[in-house]
Amino acid sequence: MYIVIMAGGVGTRFWPKSRAQRPKQLLNIVGDKTMIQASVARLGSMVTSDNLYIVATQWQKEGILQNLPILKEDNLILEPKGKNTAPCIGLASLYLRRINPRDVMLILPADHLIQEEEQFRKTILEAAQIAQKGNLLVTIGIKPTYPATGYGYIQFNSALEADQGIQAFSVKTFAEKPDLKTAERFLESGDFLWNSGIFLWKVETILQAIEKYMPELYESLLEIDSAIGTPQELEVIQRVYCQIKGISIDYGIMEQAQNVSVLPGDFGWNDVGSWEEVYKISPKDKKGNVIRGNHILKDVSNCLIDSPDKLVAAIGIENLVIVDTGDALLVCRKDRAQQVKDIVEIMKRKKFDELL
Amino acid sequence: MYIVIMAGGVGTRFWPKSRAQRPKQLLNIVGDKTMIQASVARLGSMVTSDNLYIVATQWQKEGILQNLPILKEDNLILEPKGKNTAPCIGLASLYLRRINPRDVMLILPADHLIQEEEQFRKTILEAAQIAQKGNLLVTIGIKPTYPATGYGYIQFNSALEADQGIQAFSVKTFAEKPDLKTAERFLESGDFLWNSGIFLWKVETILQAIEKYMPELYESLLEIDSAIGTPQELEVIQRVYCQIKGISIDYGIMEQAQNVSVLPGDFGWNDVGSWEEVYKISPKDKKGNVIRGNHILKDVSNCLIDSPDKLVAAIGIENLVIVDTGDALLVCRKDRAQQVKDIVEIMKRKKFDELL
Repeated sequence: MYIVIMAGGVGTRFWPKSRAQRPKQLLNIVGDKTMIQASVARLGSMVTSDNLYIVATQWQKEGILQNLPILKEDNLILEPKGKNTAPCIGLASLYLRRINPRDVMLILPADHLIQEEEQFRKTILEAAQIAQKGNLLVTIGIKPTYPATGYGYIQFNSALEADQGIQAFSVKTFAEKPDLKTAERFLESGDFLWNSGIFLWKVETILQAIEKYMPELYESLLEIDSAIGTPQELEVIQRVYCQIKGISIDYGIMEQAQNVSVLPGDFGWNDVGSWEEVYKISPKDKKGNVIRGNHILKDVSNCLIDSPDKLVAAIGIENLVIVDTGDALLVCRKDRAQQVKDIVEIMKRKKFDELL
Repeated sequence: MYIVIMAGGVGTRFWPKSRAQRPKQLLNIVGDKTMIQASVARLGSMVTSDNLYIVATQWQKEGILQNLPILKEDNLILEPKGKNTAPCIGLASLYLRRINPRDVMLILPADHLIQEEEQFRKTILEAAQIAQKGNLLVTIGIKPTYPATGYGYIQFNSALEADQGIQAFSVKTFAEKPDLKTAERFLESGDFLWNSGIFLWKVETILQAIEKYMPELYESLLEIDSAIGTPQELEVIQRVYCQIKGISIDYGIMEQAQNVSVLPGDFGWNDVGSWEEVYKISPKDKKGNVIRGNHILKDVSNCLIDSPDKLVAAIGIENLVIVDTGDALLVCRKDRAQQVKDIVEIMKRKKFDELL
C-alpha cells in the first residue's frame, strides 16, 4: 500500500502561528509533534521510507523534509501551486502508476488529529482490504459524536456485502457543512457520517474515475505524465499544473462516481479546524484554561493562551483566544475563531506580507 | 521661584510598559512627550535651567537626564530609595535653603496630565503670590468634575481674605480616596476639591513645619544637611535616608498644620493613574477604541490597544486593555486596570525580575 499524505494546506485559521511557509501541518498545535509528524507516526509499522509519499507546494519543501527524516526526497511530490485535492491526488497517482497501478493508495490529510491510533490503523487496514478486492473508491466516514457544523457529511445507503466482518456501505449523498439544525437532524438520523478526507483505492481505479468524471484534468495529467522522467519534467509540471482548475476530489469524483464505498470509523478524529477546536481537545486547568507559556492570571477562565516565548498577564477575561508570536498578536473571542481566516485576507489586502 | 519635580514614582500600574528603570514619568503614555517632559514643558517661561530641580531615586538618574536636557546635573537630587513625599520634599528643601530660605518652592508630581496649560500657569503664579506673602503652606485643589474614587479630597473652610482677586481658602480636612457614595456626596456638597499633590511654600516655611510635625524626619535632615558639601555627603545621605520612615507630606504635615491654604484650580488635571484613565482621556475612533500600532480589528469596541512594534489582530472583543511590549503582554478588562499593580506584586514573588 502506498501512503500519500496531502500536505499542501495553508491553514490560515491558525494565524498568527501559521504562515505561508509554516502552515498548520508543520506546527505543533496539539502536543509535541508537528501535525504532519503525528500523521506519519500514527501509521506505525504501516509506513516505511519506501511507501511514504507527500504532496506539498514547492515553498513547503524545506519544512516538509526537515519535519520528516523518514521521507525520501524523491517521494516528495511538489505542486507549483495548491490546486485543491483532485489535481493533488491525480498528480501523485501518475508517479504511483509507474510502480504498480494495481496497488492501493491511502490518501491522508496532513493536519488532522486522531486520538485512538490503534483503532485508526485497524480501520485503515480494513478499508485497504475492500479497496484491494474491488474496483471501489473507499472513503472513511467518521461516526459523528455531536452535531458539528464545521464538517461535511456522507449519508450512507444500503450495506454492502460484509467481507470477513468488515461492513462497508454504499453512499447515498455527500452533504456540505450544514447549519446547526440540519446537523442535528443528520446526527439523529443515524445514517450520516463526517467526511474525513481519508480515501483508499487502487491507483488505476482513481485514474479511471478522473478520466471519466474530470476529463479536462485527466488530459492535463497525461501531458504531465509524458514529461515525467524527461529533462522537461519540472518545466511541464510548472506550466500545465498552473492552468489546472482547483477542484476537490469530493466535488470532482466522489459526489458523482457510482463505485463509492464508505467504511465507518470511530477513532477520535478531529480536523482541528480552528483555535476553538484546539481549545476543545486540549487538557484544561481547573478554571478551564489551556495555557502554553509563562503566565500570571487573575480571574481568567475558559481561555486559550499560547505564548511560548513571553509572559502573559491577564485580568478578568473569559472565553478568549490569545496567541502571541513575537511579531504578531491575536486576541479573539473563542467562538469567533473561525474568522481568523478573514484577518489573513485583510492582511493580504493591506500588504502585511511578512506576516502572511 | 524654585521648581521641584518629584519624579521618584515607580508606576507599577502601567506595567508592562512601566518598569523599575522606566517608570510612568519616563513614558509617553499620553501624547508624544514623556510625562516628565510634559511636566517641565507646560511650565513655559516659568522654568529655567537654574530654577529646575528634580528629585528621583538613584537608578532613575540616567533616564531623567536623558529626558531633560534642560536639567543641570547638580540640580538632580537623588534619593537612595523612594521614601514617599515628606522625606523627598525635606531633602530638596535642604539644598534650596542654602540658596535662599525665603524663596518660594513649587512642588509638582512628574506624572500628571494637565490639559489647560495656560490656566495652570496662571493658577501657579497666583498660588506663588500667596505663598510669598505669608507663612502659608499652599496647595492647589482641583475642582472635581465627577465623583472620582481614585483621588484624595480636600474640604475647604472659610474663605481667606482675597488678595488682588485671588481667593484661597483655609482647609477643614483632608479625606482619603472615598467610595463612590461618599465621592458623590463630596461632589454635591461643593466644598470638596481633589488633592492634586501640587504645593507651594517658602523653603523656610516647610522646614519649620517639618521641625514641628515630623521632628524625627527633621533630625535626619539636619544630619544630612551637615554633610552636604563635604566628601561624606553621598555616604551620609545613603545611610541616613535609608533609615527614614516613608511618610507622605499630606499625612505628615498637611493634615496637621494650621497654616494650610488651598487655592482652587480648574485646568483639566488628571493623575493618569491607570490604563483605564489613559483610555478615558485619549481621543477615540468611531468604535470607541484607542489604538497605538498596526492593527486589524473586527467588531472591536471600547478597547485600549497599545502595541507600537507589532501587529495586533482582534475579533469580537470589547472593554479590554491590551498592552504589548515585546517581552510581555497584558490583557485586562478595562474596569479592572487598577489591579495591574497586583500582577506586578505577583511577579515580584515569582521572581520575574527582568520584567519588573
